Amino acid sequence: MKLIRYGAIGKEKTGVIIDDKKYDTSAFGEDYDENFFESDGIKRLTDFVEKHKTNLTEISDGERLGSPIARPSKLVCIGLNYAKHAKETNAQIPQEPIIFFKSTTAIVGPNDNIMLPKGSVKTDWEVELALVIGKKASYVSKEEALNYVAGYVLHNDISERAFQIERGGQWTKGKGCDTFAPLGPWLATADEIEDPNNLRLWLKLNGKIMQDGNTDDFIFDIAHVVSYLSEFMTLLPGDVISTGTPNGVGLGFNPQIYLKEGDVVELGIDGLGTAKQNVVAYAKN
Amino acid sequence: MKLIRYGAIGKEKTGVIIDDKKYDTSAFGEDYDENFFESDGIKRLTDFVEKHKTNLTEISDGERLGSPIARPSKLVCIGLNYAKHAKETNAQIPQEPIIFFKSTTAIVGPNDNIMLPKGSVKTDWEVELALVIGKKASYVSKEEALNYVAGYVLHNDISERAFQIERGGQWTKGKGCDTFAPLGPWLATADEIEDPNNLRLWLKLNGKIMQDGNTDDFIFDIAHVVSYLSEFMTLLPGDVISTGTPNGVGLGFNPQIYLKEGDVVELGIDGLGTAKQNVVAYAKN
Repeated sequence: MKLIRYGAIGKEKTGVIIDDKKYDTSAFGEDYDENFFESDGIKRLTDFVEKHKTNLTEISDGERLGSPIARPSKLVCIGLNYAKHAKETNAQIPQEPIIFFKSTTAIVGPNDNIMLPKGSVKTDWEVELALVIGKKASYVSKEEALNYVAGYVLHNDISERAFQIERGGQWTKGKGCDTFAPLGPWLATADEIEDPNNLRLWLKLNGKIMQDGNTDDFIFDIAHVVSYLSEFMTLLPGDVISTGTPNGVGLGFNPQIYLKEGDVVELGIDGLGTAKQNVVAYAKN
Repeated sequence: MKLIRYGAIGKEKTGVIIDDKKYDTSAFGEDYDENFFESDGIKRLTDFVEKHKTNLTEISDGERLGSPIARPSKLVCIGLNYAKHAKETNAQIPQEPIIFFKSTTAIVGPNDNIMLPKGSVKTDWEVELALVIGKKASYVSKEEALNYVAGYVLHNDISERAFQIERGGQWTKGKGCDTFAPLGPWLATADEIEDPNNLRLWLKLNGKIMQDGNTDDFIFDIAHVVSYLSEFMTLLPGDVISTGTPNGVGLGFNPQIYLKEGDVVELGIDGLGTAKQNVVAYAKN
């Protein structure tokens, strides 16, 4: 099943996609959040949709899409998880996964604007496969790990490289600005994705292909990432884990290429749809 | 006012402390969470307590205390914010605040056990002054910053140094293990703390003083920290920001000293009470 959330920012309603058509599921009465995933929500939603499929209301194409999951307890990312990307950033191949957080306030819908933070000159793109945790995970083995994955979603891990690298200390400063985590268009439940470790993912800037990779280039695969993370923190239902980006980010070019007002970013992953984001200057909400 | 939460883990009820006695405020009907702080909850709670103070139920001393705030959207920390602590860890004095996240699943009550993660040999203590955000903050000036602070709370920023420093990449791995963020005993509203940049804070291990500092040794004061953070992410009501630790952590000794099963940690800050944590081995929940 494909889950979506749609409507005004902060007031998203829930829906599903069936045969390429979007349907409202507000009558199900639950947001796609921690409680939903924790209480076998996907199974219950599937039953609801099956029972009511003949009288669900179709959602018009004009509606804004939000993130397909409500704000999670955390948005965790893996750094440098593709061999070619590690190389382009002049980093060593990691011996173990690199972990960092993005502020969950960075989450927006798949086609919302990317807003350049004040003073930004090095805002960069990163197409990524993200997964959503289905049940509480602590010290989960690699063998069990995929049982803890509810589904998958497309993520653009927007990064301000000067904030990330040149402002002292950790990467945190360049990862969590508002609009820096477009998620969606949809959450594909795990049964929809035959092999998450073999998906093409790509990103275009102003129509030109910049990233064109495949998750088969992962240094650490999905099961490894989930198991490894669960050694260092308890993962909660609805948590989003983004698995790293392939080569082709702006930082890797010579000279480097960064986003500017008016740019258009398009990205996609096999089975997870496409997203399109316009780059705008900072504006006070 | 002093806000507390008490009762079984995950089922905490709310209360307040008046004249050193603890009273239940469940009838107020709201947890101390994002919605509470966002909707002027402290003012409304103050009115509620004023109106009902003669018939509030006293909480028995046997009750467990939980974190005085419900799980926030984020738990952000400042690294190396005391000159003497930076020196003991052989780090340079930062030019700008260092920012990192702790997983919010690490939050526990002030007197709950500290659980050593599996395989831990370098679990360390860090007494810290944490603040709680009162209203949404983005690009807030230093002059305005204190208006965004709802109150203050005692925090032990437990850290596994091998996970933090020796496992590759960012500090994230050593900061977010379960039980690594005891908060409390109470949240003191901002009006109770005359000068947050001049508070003594201390920590004892098995009765012996290990940390004994004062926030007047901050490299970056409270207003600076709030303003600075709000340049890189939007802070939400109820978010917790921990402002760094003074010298005297286990990492700084020669030879280094780390927590082991059976150890007792006590800590406190002027006006924010004291906490006491027993160190236990990992045990599956």
